[in-house]
Amino acid sequence: MVEQFHLAFRTRGRGTTPILDEVNRALSGASLRVGLAHVFVRHTSASLLINENADPRVHRDLETVLSRFAPDGDPAYTHDDEGDDDMAAHARTMLTGPGLSVPFADGRLLLGTWQGLYLYEHRTSPHRRSVVLTLIGDTAPMNDG
Amino acid sequence: MVEQFHLAFRTRGRGTTPILDEVNRALSGASLRVGLAHVFVRHTSASLLINENADPRVHRDLETVLSRFAPDGDPAYTHDDEGDDDMAAHARTMLTGPGLSVPFADGRLLLGTWQGLYLYEHRTSPHRRSVVLTLIGDTAPMNDG
Amino acid sequence: MVEQFHLAFRTRGRGTTPILDEVNRALSGASLRVGLAHVFVRHTSASLLINENADPRVHRDLETVLSRFAPDGDPAYTHDDEGDDDMAAHARTMLTGPGLSVPFADGRLLLGTWQGLYLYEHRTSPHRRSVVLTLIGDTAPMNDG
Repeated sequence: MVEQFHLAFRTRGRGTTPILDEVNRALSGASLRVGLAHVFVRHTSASLLINENADPRVHRDLETVLSRFAPDGDPAYTHDDEGDDDMAAHARTMLTGPGLSVPFADGRLLLGTWQGLYLYEHRTSPHRRSVVLTLIGDTAPMNDG
Repeated sequence: MVEQFHLAFRTRGRGTTPILDEVNRALSGASLRVGLAHVFVRHTSASLLINENADPRVHRDLETVLSRFAPDGDPAYTHDDEGDDDMAAHARTMLTGPGLSVPFADGRLLLGTWQGLYLYEHRTSPHRRSVVLTLIGDTAPMNDG
Repeated sequence: MVEQFHLAFRTRGRGTTPILDEVNRALSGASLRVGLAHVFVRHTSASLLINENADPRVHRDLETVLSRFAPDGDPAYTHDDEGDDDMAAHARTMLTGPGLSVPFADGRLLLGTWQGLYLYEHRTSPHRRSVVLTLIGDTAPMNDG
């Protein structure tokens, strides 16, 4: 069975926005108890990330690595209509990806202790980002009873 | 429920081949109406990409970024049996990944306005690439009726 | 329907550990015959990889590429509490990702001939890594009979 939710987030410009609480809220209101939660961002300059949830310096350093991978305003870019951060944002999205799945059981995501779930804004200015959460699974585990 | 389709694409060598029309065609012939569409490429030197569908210069610039990430013929590579683009293609596939999922509802993929779906060929010569499309979902939304 | 398995692997430090045999073993004991197998690693310094299964030099060269992407002990990192390989491991995990899905049919994963499935340890020392395998699908293909 499937349950689908449309979520929206306001980002504050480049960087990570935690979205786990919103996803957990949707999951707790769903009737599915075991399965996969798929999160999908409907944009080409923002992506999803599962990574360290404790030390904010990790996210700062991920920024360092990403900005080397695809520098803003690189003179080699030919697509620059929307500013220096435009093409960099597309490349960063290619690297991190628009969707990911997390298993759940007993109505709870099976994330590890240190895993947080983030929407990653790659443009420098704030944006409104549209996210689709799709739950696929069963209302009770198959092997129950 | 599950519906599975085997698709094949001829690439023209390195670069992106749009595959959204083929996926939409399979989806429109399927009985599932809501769920997840998973696309999987059965090769280690081609991958899948969701990114900008309007300006072809974006894809050219993604090439620039990828070729810096994993240059052809890098003297540091030890695996070079099949030519200069061989190991680079494996590394580019690691970065972009062999599979991705897109949510659908009412029989339509929930891609954003600017999101296209592409098979990314990483070898320089044309190849035939085998792709599996798996639809998981329901024939009607759970909350209907 | 859903079937879920908790697996654990001991890694030998940085590098790839094949996990396909374990996943196949779980799949062969499952009652689902067609669908998606989703593998998820519950850590922020290890990830999953589908890539070349024949020549071990490919994995060595992927290491070369990854260590350029995120060098150990980079002076630009601000998160270094657990040693030189700590932040590098988080960045490598961002690039390769904590989860992936593989389609299956007739109870067998539909991997290509050259595709292997690996747990990728990004820390230099051995670790115990927890992995969740979630199967979503049907006990028989929808179009059967």
